[in-house]
Amino acid sequence: MRLVTYRSQVDAAGRLGAIVDGQVVDLERFGKTQNVALPSTMLEFIDLGPVAVSGTTALLASVEGNWPIGTAVPLANVKLLAPIPRPRKNIFGIGLNYIDHVAESAAALDTSADLPKQPVIFSKPPTTVCGPGDPILHNAKITQQLDWEVELAAIIGTTAKGVAREGALAHVFGYTVLIDMSARDCRRAGQWIYSKGQDSFAPMGPCIVTADEIPDPQTLDLWLTVNGVEKQRNNTSHMLFKVDELIADISQGITLEPGDIIATGTPEGVGAGRTPQEWLWPGDTIECGVESIGTLRNPVVAA
Amino acid sequence: MRLVTYRSQVDAAGRLGAIVDGQVVDLERFGKTQNVALPSTMLEFIDLGPVAVSGTTALLASVEGNWPIGTAVPLANVKLLAPIPRPRKNIFGIGLNYIDHVAESAAALDTSADLPKQPVIFSKPPTTVCGPGDPILHNAKITQQLDWEVELAAIIGTTAKGVAREGALAHVFGYTVLIDMSARDCRRAGQWIYSKGQDSFAPMGPCIVTADEIPDPQTLDLWLTVNGVEKQRNNTSHMLFKVDELIADISQGITLEPGDIIATGTPEGVGAGRTPQEWLWPGDTIECGVESIGTLRNPVVAA
Repeated sequence: MRLVTYRSQVDAAGRLGAIVDGQVVDLERFGKTQNVALPSTMLEFIDLGPVAVSGTTALLASVEGNWPIGTAVPLANVKLLAPIPRPRKNIFGIGLNYIDHVAESAAALDTSADLPKQPVIFSKPPTTVCGPGDPILHNAKITQQLDWEVELAAIIGTTAKGVAREGALAHVFGYTVLIDMSARDCRRAGQWIYSKGQDSFAPMGPCIVTADEIPDPQTLDLWLTVNGVEKQRNNTSHMLFKVDELIADISQGITLEPGDIIATGTPEGVGAGRTPQEWLWPGDTIECGVESIGTLRNPVVAA
Repeated sequence: MRLVTYRSQVDAAGRLGAIVDGQVVDLERFGKTQNVALPSTMLEFIDLGPVAVSGTTALLASVEGNWPIGTAVPLANVKLLAPIPRPRKNIFGIGLNYIDHVAESAAALDTSADLPKQPVIFSKPPTTVCGPGDPILHNAKITQQLDWEVELAAIIGTTAKGVAREGALAHVFGYTVLIDMSARDCRRAGQWIYSKGQDSFAPMGPCIVTADEIPDPQTLDLWLTVNGVEKQRNNTSHMLFKVDELIADISQGITLEPGDIIATGTPEGVGAGRTPQEWLWPGDTIECGVESIGTLRNPVVAA
């Protein structure tokens, strides 16, 4: 399934939908017509566990596109929000997780040229999250080095505590695209949360593709353009620590919970690593995507 | 007010209470007897804003200790939980915020001896939170350097975005005691979240003292003992960045929201800074406190 959080003309709050053939099927409303209680938000749906994914997939298929009136609207008629508009905790970010990016970061920033021996983890508050098309805020009072990072993000589906690498992917609910915006001049004593944690610094979407449709997350192309010029193009096969290793590693010390988001790191091609360095300014537009998931397009706007 | 989240023999879930003369007054139940709708959880109460604090304070005083039956229980008969058992996002932690601690950290760890020019911010996931008396988990698979840090924590009461230092304290709901547990050997490429973010690494409590009772948070003694031996003793007057500066600074880039927790840093005397270095092991007990708030006592237990 391709799951979204959407807002239509009649619904002020975000609601859970599935994209099927260009239609957004409202899961709660569709469920009611089938006498199945489905929730109205993504986090509630994730909480239901893997059985809800397979059951809902079958339920959607069973009507063969004959959506009862009031249960589906054309995708073009809705506004997509971030799939999880308000995470229950900070997003887990992974730094220096593509080999070429370790090299460009060491040349331009204050990180080591040695490949990390363990995942480098940081976090982004829930207030960083914004959706497809939403403005990325450039706060000129505190940064003149706003940078892009396209990433595959994994959404945790079931609690993971001390899990082994083998079987770790069974804890994934699905995948989405996330831009790990970074104000490079806001790093402090090496800590990244202020540089990566500012309001609007985690555009996310356009949908969550459930894990059954992406059995191997390490084969996906990902790319990013600024004002139409390609800046990043790579493949998740080049990740240093794969998604299953990240889950296993984090879960040794930190219990991962349903709805948790792990942004898995960015490949080579960020603005800080270029000669001369390139930064984002109000008026710029970022477009990026991950294969099999979709694309995100966000303008940079003065805060 | 001294507000707690408590569990009695009859209540499985944590409930909001106020400590008055050795009694825990259940705010929702007491409110009902006064025809005032008060919530049953701390976060809901914080969301009501400053008017709820002054109004509830007056309401509690009005009955002069004659608690209607069923609205108050002896403090000794309840289990106190963390005042906010489940924060809505990661705790904001502040590193290197006492001058003597900057020096001991530089001598023992990988931080600079220069005083930070801006607050050094990191985060601790909601899964770190535990309450008074709860076990601090020592996970020998991933750390042999478990360390203590007693801190004053400020709880945000009203949304703060781009606020000035003057008036910043008006955004504080109250204060509590927090132990910023740190596994020193789990730092990664300078990032602290894995070393400070493990399950149980933020014992908190015993209560939140509302800000009206602590007009100046920079005059408070704080101390910590391990197995009865004093390790830290200091005063919040020695903070490098005061509470109002921290709120003003963070809020320039990151919107602070009701219920957000800022752990304001620890003074000199941590285990890493001692000669020889001292680490915590299962069987040890930490006791610590901040003046005007109370004490926390937590055993270290094998994970």
